[in-house]
Amino acid sequence: MKTLKLRKVAIDTYKENVAYLHRDCPLYHSEGFQALNKIEISDGAGTTSVIAVLNIVDDERIIATDELGLSEQTFSQFNGTENCIVHVNHATPPSSLRLVHAKIAGNKLGKNDFLNICEDIVNNRYSKIEITAFLVGCAEGGLERDEMLYLTEAMVETGKTLDWGEPMVVDKHCIGGIPGNRTTMLIVPIVAAHGMLMPKTSSRAITSPSGTADTMEVLAKVNLKQEELHSIAQHQRGFIAWGGTANLAPVDDILISVERPLALDSKGQMIASILSKKIAAGATHLLIDIPMGPTAKVHSQTEALKLRKLFEYIGDQTNLELEVIITDGRQPVGNGIGPLLEARDVMQILQNNPQAPVDLKEKSLQMAGRILEFDPDVRGGQGYYLARDLLESGRALKKMEAIIALQGNQPVPTRPAQFQYQVRAPAAGYVTVIDNFQIAHIARMAGAPMDKAAGIDLHKKLNDRVDTNEPLYTIYAEFNADFQFARTLAAKDSGYSIGEKQ
Amino acid sequence: MKTLKLRKVAIDTYKENVAYLHRDCPLYHSEGFQALNKIEISDGAGTTSVIAVLNIVDDERIIATDELGLSEQTFSQFNGTENCIVHVNHATPPSSLRLVHAKIAGNKLGKNDFLNICEDIVNNRYSKIEITAFLVGCAEGGLERDEMLYLTEAMVETGKTLDWGEPMVVDKHCIGGIPGNRTTMLIVPIVAAHGMLMPKTSSRAITSPSGTADTMEVLAKVNLKQEELHSIAQHQRGFIAWGGTANLAPVDDILISVERPLALDSKGQMIASILSKKIAAGATHLLIDIPMGPTAKVHSQTEALKLRKLFEYIGDQTNLELEVIITDGRQPVGNGIGPLLEARDVMQILQNNPQAPVDLKEKSLQMAGRILEFDPDVRGGQGYYLARDLLESGRALKKMEAIIALQGNQPVPTRPAQFQYQVRAPAAGYVTVIDNFQIAHIARMAGAPMDKAAGIDLHKKLNDRVDTNEPLYTIYAEFNADFQFARTLAAKDSGYSIGEKQ
Repeated sequence: MKTLKLRKVAIDTYKENVAYLHRDCPLYHSEGFQALNKIEISDGAGTTSVIAVLNIVDDERIIATDELGLSEQTFSQFNGTENCIVHVNHATPPSSLRLVHAKIAGNKLGKNDFLNICEDIVNNRYSKIEITAFLVGCAEGGLERDEMLYLTEAMVETGKTLDWGEPMVVDKHCIGGIPGNRTTMLIVPIVAAHGMLMPKTSSRAITSPSGTADTMEVLAKVNLKQEELHSIAQHQRGFIAWGGTANLAPVDDILISVERPLALDSKGQMIASILSKKIAAGATHLLIDIPMGPTAKVHSQTEALKLRKLFEYIGDQTNLELEVIITDGRQPVGNGIGPLLEARDVMQILQNNPQAPVDLKEKSLQMAGRILEFDPDVRGGQGYYLARDLLESGRALKKMEAIIALQGNQPVPTRPAQFQYQVRAPAAGYVTVIDNFQIAHIARMAGAPMDKAAGIDLHKKLNDRVDTNEPLYTIYAEFNADFQFARTLAAKDSGYSIGEKQ
Repeated sequence: MKTLKLRKVAIDTYKENVAYLHRDCPLYHSEGFQALNKIEISDGAGTTSVIAVLNIVDDERIIATDELGLSEQTFSQFNGTENCIVHVNHATPPSSLRLVHAKIAGNKLGKNDFLNICEDIVNNRYSKIEITAFLVGCAEGGLERDEMLYLTEAMVETGKTLDWGEPMVVDKHCIGGIPGNRTTMLIVPIVAAHGMLMPKTSSRAITSPSGTADTMEVLAKVNLKQEELHSIAQHQRGFIAWGGTANLAPVDDILISVERPLALDSKGQMIASILSKKIAAGATHLLIDIPMGPTAKVHSQTEALKLRKLFEYIGDQTNLELEVIITDGRQPVGNGIGPLLEARDVMQILQNNPQAPVDLKEKSLQMAGRILEFDPDVRGGQGYYLARDLLESGRALKKMEAIIALQGNQPVPTRPAQFQYQVRAPAAGYVTVIDNFQIAHIARMAGAPMDKAAGIDLHKKLNDRVDTNEPLYTIYAEFNADFQFARTLAAKDSGYSIGEKQ
């Protein structure tokens, strides 16, 4: 009576589990199920079960009346085969939901509370709306710093952790928001050339025109197995790979899938997200970059300092050696924005090409220097000079080439994108503003990061002098529709302001 | 390039708009869409558009690569035909979302702010997670009473309102949680027999074993058109219909679809929900029933009084004449729980049958009396006696029969359900506790309200003396699986406690 035949429905519902039932399914009526109800599907033997939100289907080609359909992700979580018999029941709300209610009511939660919540989330017992309730309860000052610590620890404990078998594993992280800011691809070869272990996993772009993994992918394969990564780390002391498949702090990925579209300002969740991933990835020493500027994520020194203290507090409590630097976030870093153009900047710097962007080089040397100083044998204040030596001597380039060779060369076209358009200065003067958001938006519309060669190449930076009609930047696109879209956007607002010398 | 052919996908996604795109659709790649992204679908001419959450499909039988699919509800909102050309773009977040962020940050919102939010919600510009963020921001004391007023008004203004063309239109509402509490079906015929206008729309059960609309449906059709309702009101001064199709305060329905599964304690939203529906339905005079008891929604006198004052404040500000009574919510009201058994109780009372449950009769008379006293010609304190006279004289029964005849007799089987089981007292003593939640849960599992004859018939109430093995209640079910499920549940916890006389 309460059993149905399992079917996989070829719909990708991402981080939300969805089940499909035909409207004329006898169970639908007898059980009083409704669309958007949460149901629990099990094999009856108690060996596997999954919770999903219900959609009702009126088309037997999608699902028959004696079948229970699961979306792709849900099917893969359920340990069953098509046509196997499944039992269906109303899902009981996760028991930790009462803790979410307590958080919303303004109560402080303890270490075990966060662990209970994270365990239910990682077992897919939370729907999107329950996750949202948790996030909103934690947002806007809803978490004290102890609670941020508990959340960080709970996110680490509910996933896998990597062990590199060495006392010092260095890492870096930027809180983001600055286009072109590809320091990682310079820091890793410099630091690894010194012999420090820096096994760097990076993200792909979600809302930006490129993530480090997207840019690295122009030069090398980034989708590597854990065994391959360990072997490269052993031979070359570093790599730059995509971190998407490692199941490190998986709760974080689930929270982000809800938090991002909500654009919620949740400092606690951001800090827990960053630090849990790093701790799970086995980092022992971490440098955090907080860019500050009017169109950066952090707008003021006060805000940046507050954030720094929170990072430091949780770092200390979790035995993570942590340094924070506050950097210039008033404009993009480097010239290229988009995978191919950014990879070009990186390689020019490694090759000591005189055309290489100076700002990206200097920022990378500063940061690499700070990481090198984690080495007890490097004298305080000497990190920068050591980094510069490693770069200018060509040792960092050689290290990068060796890493690329081991990760696997990537057959990506390196020709520029076919559609090009120069955005020009409307008047003579000095560049007074470059809007990070708008530049990122135009580059994204031009096709970055999907089209590797699409993006923007900046010709002028802050305080540069420009003549009327002088090119400010070039838009690159692979497809005409994207090209027109990006041009229209730039015509409305180029992202540049030209004014008096400041 | 950015156009696709429209297709209706026969999936019911309830209050959430969902669009379907094939993974190999060229647009999916060029635009960087992701599953769960929000997209805007328009006809290109600017005459119709709809916002939906994206699901990615890997089966061309569900959606082809040159098609854009919309779920049933989404398709019906979009003013287009199958195979028409649609344009697809990333949806921009609703502009009122910044107000939600302000609310979460603890700011007070104004009248226009709530109106902006409700307008965006009613136009389906909010995703489920954005609605959740709004609800959580408003929950647990997040709304001051002025804000509850603004939310109430905004929910009324963003929907249709009914006008009955009379200076006095009476209504009643119970905040719920008490099984069997079918006072409405007695109050309406009593009050209408007195000549007062009481056009009563009721809800169906969502989490309870029966709603008034479910119980009335045993006796008469409840799914009536607005013109039919007006005609019945004109001829008989009252009706008891289902209120689901009238588009009154539609924002409320959308909020509830998210709030209910979250089980969020949001006083402000509950008050705004109740009062906006009543105002939109054209009520001028309203009686609110707040049952109080350990397993009712409200547990203490303090809590009940707080709620009463909030109702009174918003009633006064919106020119709704409003009375609140706090009633005994320690146990179910009446004997029957489930549509058929409750309808039996109601008809027994109307027929002055000596077996009729006294508690349901007395509570209904008290409440009808209070409503009758809204009539300036009824002397204060005389309402109860007038109500009793209208009931015991048979005039209320005649009124009910006339209403049933106009709404349309319903051919529903009135035989008892085929599976029956008596739950018996484990020991002699007195009934000290009847748990509303547990009794409702068992009745629901037995099949109520889907199976009209399923439910529970109570034989003992609070403070009744029982012998060992004496029946406490009978479970009725139509299907054996439901029957076994309900029996198992009752064996675990019958919902009754037997103890010393209190």
